[in-house]
Amino acid sequence: MKEKAETKLTGYLKIVEKEKKVVEDRIKKSLVGRKPESLYSPGYYVVETGGKRLRPMLILLSAKAAGGSFKDAYNAAAAVELMHNFTLVHDDIMDNAGKRRNRPTLHVKYDLSTAILAGDSLLSIAYELLIKDCNHNAAEILNAFNSGLIEVCEGQSLDKEFETRKDVSVKEYYVMIQKKTAALIETCCRIGGLLGRGSKEVVKALADFGKYAGLAFQIQDDLLDITGDEKEFGKICGGDLVEGKKTYLFLAALSKAKGNDKKKLLDVIKNKGIERKDIQTYKELYEKLGVLKDAKKEILRLSNVALKKIELLPNQEDREIFYELASSLINRNK
Amino acid sequence: MKEKAETKLTGYLKIVEKEKKVVEDRIKKSLVGRKPESLYSPGYYVVETGGKRLRPMLILLSAKAAGGSFKDAYNAAAAVELMHNFTLVHDDIMDNAGKRRNRPTLHVKYDLSTAILAGDSLLSIAYELLIKDCNHNAAEILNAFNSGLIEVCEGQSLDKEFETRKDVSVKEYYVMIQKKTAALIETCCRIGGLLGRGSKEVVKALADFGKYAGLAFQIQDDLLDITGDEKEFGKICGGDLVEGKKTYLFLAALSKAKGNDKKKLLDVIKNKGIERKDIQTYKELYEKLGVLKDAKKEILRLSNVALKKIELLPNQEDREIFYELASSLINRNK
Repeated sequence: MKEKAETKLTGYLKIVEKEKKVVEDRIKKSLVGRKPESLYSPGYYVVETGGKRLRPMLILLSAKAAGGSFKDAYNAAAAVELMHNFTLVHDDIMDNAGKRRNRPTLHVKYDLSTAILAGDSLLSIAYELLIKDCNHNAAEILNAFNSGLIEVCEGQSLDKEFETRKDVSVKEYYVMIQKKTAALIETCCRIGGLLGRGSKEVVKALADFGKYAGLAFQIQDDLLDITGDEKEFGKICGGDLVEGKKTYLFLAALSKAKGNDKKKLLDVIKNKGIERKDIQTYKELYEKLGVLKDAKKEILRLSNVALKKIELLPNQEDREIFYELASSLINRNK
Repeated sequence: MKEKAETKLTGYLKIVEKEKKVVEDRIKKSLVGRKPESLYSPGYYVVETGGKRLRPMLILLSAKAAGGSFKDAYNAAAAVELMHNFTLVHDDIMDNAGKRRNRPTLHVKYDLSTAILAGDSLLSIAYELLIKDCNHNAAEILNAFNSGLIEVCEGQSLDKEFETRKDVSVKEYYVMIQKKTAALIETCCRIGGLLGRGSKEVVKALADFGKYAGLAFQIQDDLLDITGDEKEFGKICGGDLVEGKKTYLFLAALSKAKGNDKKKLLDVIKNKGIERKDIQTYKELYEKLGVLKDAKKEILRLSNVALKKIELLPNQEDREIFYELASSLINRNK
């Protein structure tokens, strides 16, 4: 059984390995050598580090699952990665983040102006690429892409708003991550489905898969922030607590805690974060309250909802690939 | 003769007065009441102050001149104003500008994060609006809009690059303002022409008008920075010199000056600007070198090129309106 699962995973990883290269090339071609270098070279600095390329892969796999082929969606795949990186560059400024994927963030490596502008231009090139793949139904595809962008902005705004609010509920947290993280993943699946000329039902099934997988992905991100390996994860562990972020773990802990435990959590809000030396204490509090386990359960529940959606896909091979993809997301350590 | 010109101007201004309200309403509707307020309220703060609304007017007039009507392009008109304001918000951060249209800039009124994100979201809403008007040929219209955005980013990057360079030529200045200012005005005319379903020739004529009018507009802006009325212009006069900006005036002066005059200009580059108390001295140097007159001549030359382009418009009334518009731009004091 285990051996079979591993073979399958290799199959999916093989697709990723091959198609990622095509997307990387498309991204590189859209930025490298373009003038002025003072704009596009910083932009490429951000995207060249790679990362999982989860969003482009979702576009490609969705296009294929909807009845099209990978080549229908290579530009769109590159586009969504550029858009994602645009959000990362601007978010890193807003969050005062010093590192991303083990390298200095753009505003640290260059300066604030360069980072704002390079971010803007990544978005502009994203639209340029996407339009190239819109041979039919351009308005619908661009609307889907743009709605994703609007939701990401709204989600980031809510995230910033939560930083100074004292009464954020787990329910509000879900609204925030749906917009900040899940909406773009949902958008990738929808755009892939549309480019692959899928039926309304298939496009919806893909988009719903993306939405729930995106929610699971974000809670996994919250979990990795405190349980992940610093080198693997590329960020300092416990960073969310240091910054006083209202993550799933924190809000779940707050709703469960009583007495002195509750006071300790309210102190995080009051002091807008904790000292680095106190991370271990809070991690132990999370364990005591059982919220690390709760998070794992919630990730599994959301993944199962996501997988239920793709049962509607016509092709068995495609369904298996989405299973493997979802499982690689749940079991990731970075 | 003078009387006739004034009557004509009233005619154009009447159109502006009426149609501006429709565009203002469209802009308001796209932002006010939208959630989260923490995102859209700062966005609306920027656009509510009005300003000339030159770009929306160009879209509407171009749509009509190409054979369509104003109502074909109201959303696009609002869209381009939002996109323009997105660039202003981010530029103000990069330029450390404290005031815009006599009010604190967004990052001063709120904070850096709010300004970056509100800017981003203005752009996202711009695309949302534009797509609404793209009933035919969405890919071409969105491509035109997006190319404008790409050029604005490139122009701003060149402008920032020029700040630290010592050898910028007047020719390079033209490339920069073509991208930073003229490209978006050209884009407005092109999009208007496309939405009005103009012939290829008419769309090109309109776009070319926009390009040359945009160049004239920017040189006029450089001129107003030093000759304008502070209250009318809404900015401090001589601000470009204080910041050491490589404007048309500065670069023309540098290419004409000799001896001590040249040394004084090179000092501006060396010291990355001048003290506020020295503005008058430099203004006198500009007058002595005749570059204020040169700028006026250049504005007139470019306006004439622009007006030549619109001779191709089929309708006499439309040609007259574009004449009035161009003349109001040349004779503006803010």
